[in-house]
Amino acid sequence: MIKYDINTEFASWYQDVVLKADLADYGPVKGTMIFKPYGYALWKRVQEVLGEMINKRLGAADVYFPSLIPLEFLEREKEHVEGFAPEVAVVTHAGGKKLAKPVAIRPTSETVMYDAFARWISSYRDLPLKVNQWVNIVRWEKRTVLFLRSTEFLWQEGHTVHATKEEAAEQVMEALDTYEEFLTKYMALPVVKGYKVETEKFAGALYTTTLEALLRTKKALQVATSHHLGQNFAKAFRIRFLSKHNKEEFAWQTSWGLSTRTLGGLIAMHGDQAGLVLPPEMAPIKIVIIPIYKSREEKLKVAEYITSIEKMLDGVGVSYHTDWSENTPGWKFNQWELKGVPLRIEVGPSEVESNQLRCVSRLNREVKVFKKSSRVYKALLKLLDEIQVSLYKKALDFLNEHTSEAKTEEEFAAALSKPGGFIKVFYKDSPKAAEYIKEKYKATPRVVPFDTYEQTGRDFITGEKGARLTWFAKAY
Amino acid sequence: MIKYDINTEFASWYQDVVLKADLADYGPVKGTMIFKPYGYALWKRVQEVLGEMINKRLGAADVYFPSLIPLEFLEREKEHVEGFAPEVAVVTHAGGKKLAKPVAIRPTSETVMYDAFARWISSYRDLPLKVNQWVNIVRWEKRTVLFLRSTEFLWQEGHTVHATKEEAAEQVMEALDTYEEFLTKYMALPVVKGYKVETEKFAGALYTTTLEALLRTKKALQVATSHHLGQNFAKAFRIRFLSKHNKEEFAWQTSWGLSTRTLGGLIAMHGDQAGLVLPPEMAPIKIVIIPIYKSREEKLKVAEYITSIEKMLDGVGVSYHTDWSENTPGWKFNQWELKGVPLRIEVGPSEVESNQLRCVSRLNREVKVFKKSSRVYKALLKLLDEIQVSLYKKALDFLNEHTSEAKTEEEFAAALSKPGGFIKVFYKDSPKAAEYIKEKYKATPRVVPFDTYEQTGRDFITGEKGARLTWFAKAY
Repeated sequence: MIKYDINTEFASWYQDVVLKADLADYGPVKGTMIFKPYGYALWKRVQEVLGEMINKRLGAADVYFPSLIPLEFLEREKEHVEGFAPEVAVVTHAGGKKLAKPVAIRPTSETVMYDAFARWISSYRDLPLKVNQWVNIVRWEKRTVLFLRSTEFLWQEGHTVHATKEEAAEQVMEALDTYEEFLTKYMALPVVKGYKVETEKFAGALYTTTLEALLRTKKALQVATSHHLGQNFAKAFRIRFLSKHNKEEFAWQTSWGLSTRTLGGLIAMHGDQAGLVLPPEMAPIKIVIIPIYKSREEKLKVAEYITSIEKMLDGVGVSYHTDWSENTPGWKFNQWELKGVPLRIEVGPSEVESNQLRCVSRLNREVKVFKKSSRVYKALLKLLDEIQVSLYKKALDFLNEHTSEAKTEEEFAAALSKPGGFIKVFYKDSPKAAEYIKEKYKATPRVVPFDTYEQTGRDFITGEKGARLTWFAKAY
Repeated sequence: MIKYDINTEFASWYQDVVLKADLADYGPVKGTMIFKPYGYALWKRVQEVLGEMINKRLGAADVYFPSLIPLEFLEREKEHVEGFAPEVAVVTHAGGKKLAKPVAIRPTSETVMYDAFARWISSYRDLPLKVNQWVNIVRWEKRTVLFLRSTEFLWQEGHTVHATKEEAAEQVMEALDTYEEFLTKYMALPVVKGYKVETEKFAGALYTTTLEALLRTKKALQVATSHHLGQNFAKAFRIRFLSKHNKEEFAWQTSWGLSTRTLGGLIAMHGDQAGLVLPPEMAPIKIVIIPIYKSREEKLKVAEYITSIEKMLDGVGVSYHTDWSENTPGWKFNQWELKGVPLRIEVGPSEVESNQLRCVSRLNREVKVFKKSSRVYKALLKLLDEIQVSLYKKALDFLNEHTSEAKTEEEFAAALSKPGGFIKVFYKDSPKAAEYIKEKYKATPRVVPFDTYEQTGRDFITGEKGARLTWFAKAY
């Protein structure tokens, strides 16, 4: 059990879960974090599943570009430098000397990559060019929260170059669709898919598409973005190619990324008062086996019985852990619930006697008992599937219950306080309007969903025509 | 063909191969490099194979610690700061402000990890603690060579904490043995295994063990090291534990690493005048299939035949690439030789006619022709195995041919000029002696091999007794 109430003391609950479940710890430099084995295993799972999708389906090959970027590069694309300058960490001394030109630690890699792309690309035959990298990123943040916002985080960033605007637009959507599949199927996180408004787009992009999740705090989390960069960077970095018609043209580009922030979403969305709850598709350990015995004789019987269960699980490749530590069964139940392991199998003398498997779901502590046979793994896999589906459904219900519409500023204010979450309004984006709403309500325009993109109406504050249906929320 | 002679113009040959085989490119900040897809695939293979060995066999779990380290941390262990200070890159500004305390980019992670270990460890029950991370490292280098020495490189670093000196010593050897197995079996790099002398050990270690390879330039390359850190860092960072006897003791530690420098060794050791030669166990593409045809009709026949070969290779999981590009077969032969693909299968009308596979080894262009049957993959796998073994043997012969003994400084000087490579001498290590030899001969003591560790004699220069058998070489 977590001592802080998940509903009324969420921030403390969250920190307690992250630390106690051994996911992460604080680094010595303000805002940095340490990914401990159990937390890093979650990121490895992201790399494994999403990495394969990126390499095979999106066709982007893995690369590694330097983390050190001439500061001057960031300044070449006007919007880009304005977007990132306040967050950049700058190396001024190295090798025991002051550097002639200061160097930035990558806050993102557009500039360092595109400088090279300009050398690599000369003809339409060199296109499309698609690369991806899994790297660390540094952005100096004022307020930090483990996983959700840290000065250094890990991410994957894909970058592609195309001959036409349309092809780049397709790539933007393919990347976003890939993220959506990963997030819904593996992370069990429902997301709202659409465009960012101008004031929220990536610095230097033509437009940004996004996937927004709603966490149980009723705050939105941007879990992945995919940008159409147009020719903005191509012009700044002179990425040109000779077209089929022998004409020199600037290339069209995209970039897209998903970071360890998403793991913060996973923790915050699915957790409960007992701690972490991991979707089976993400869990480093899917099943924990707890031996229960009083005598040495019972222990031997239980151990033999467990060995046969382990062999079966090995056979079907399901990850498990048997906790033979010297703690009490009750302590172990709590511990592995805290760590969010989806399924617990309790093995005591009575299970051995009756040749049964007693399975307890992490989700609702529901107990299911199966006869132990060589094919009982099918029942276990089915249970894990059900947990995966239930988690997604629960999160989706939450999202739906916390999405409402507002026609006026008054309704908007009311909905934001109850039920909270996403508020759908017709909104005409401008820096002034965005600023006003953020100041007054601490809410920002999160997403203009694709599926209602064609709907326009009067701005919910000014009444101006041609406003788009936009989802607002408070956000991480 | 590489235009520079591999024997007389090695440095130019090396750079040309790295760039032309699309392994890497230069980064914009001096001394940094870009790992292109083909080069990064080699590192991914290292991560796949060595990573599994480290997780499973050595029992170290993957983690991620911050790349940003308080400068003050590096200064806590006296030898450590002296070893690294000249190479450190320092962040002085971030978030638009001057930092109150400057921050280093990790030149290695002992300090940032051990600060956390001190919090995590309190009892012997917390030991051993074993972690590993795959990360980028920054060390400001004056002279850089792609892969072999770059300002930013990638590596794996393992760190363990133990209750006793002996257990730590065993861990040091287990890590070194694991590296040796990986290097010899996968990289086909023979290595000499032993201790570093005092003047060459890791800054802060009790002692350092090393694996040294000899590259075709007759220069040695340190391909992996494993350090016994004693209690040096434990004392500096206060890593203490309550022993079984309820006594507070300082812990014993090890660290060990292998970096992308090793890929430089792979390239430099196995390459030939035609370019890269990759050991099959490391090659991202093991077999390249080249279609040869003149007419459309021939092309159709050849394509059908190739499809059946591809299906067979898919079935046994051997990586291959069929080059259907519009270049001539001759151009393709050159291109894939340059890229070091171990085996080439040429498919023209006559192969289709006779139902044969014409295989050409990258190693010596030897041609083998097999009857194509559903089991011919066995012959291909055997050929790949033979290439792997031959590469290792060739490298081992080279090492043996370029290892000689010297009794006096005169003999040492003569041997260093011919045959060059490793010179075995009895040597009594001291900063002064090391400095003298380095100044005069540009050679350094590389390794005191384990298997002759007990042999002592008179120092080859001073005649002093109690000198150990030490292998010198010029080095990268």
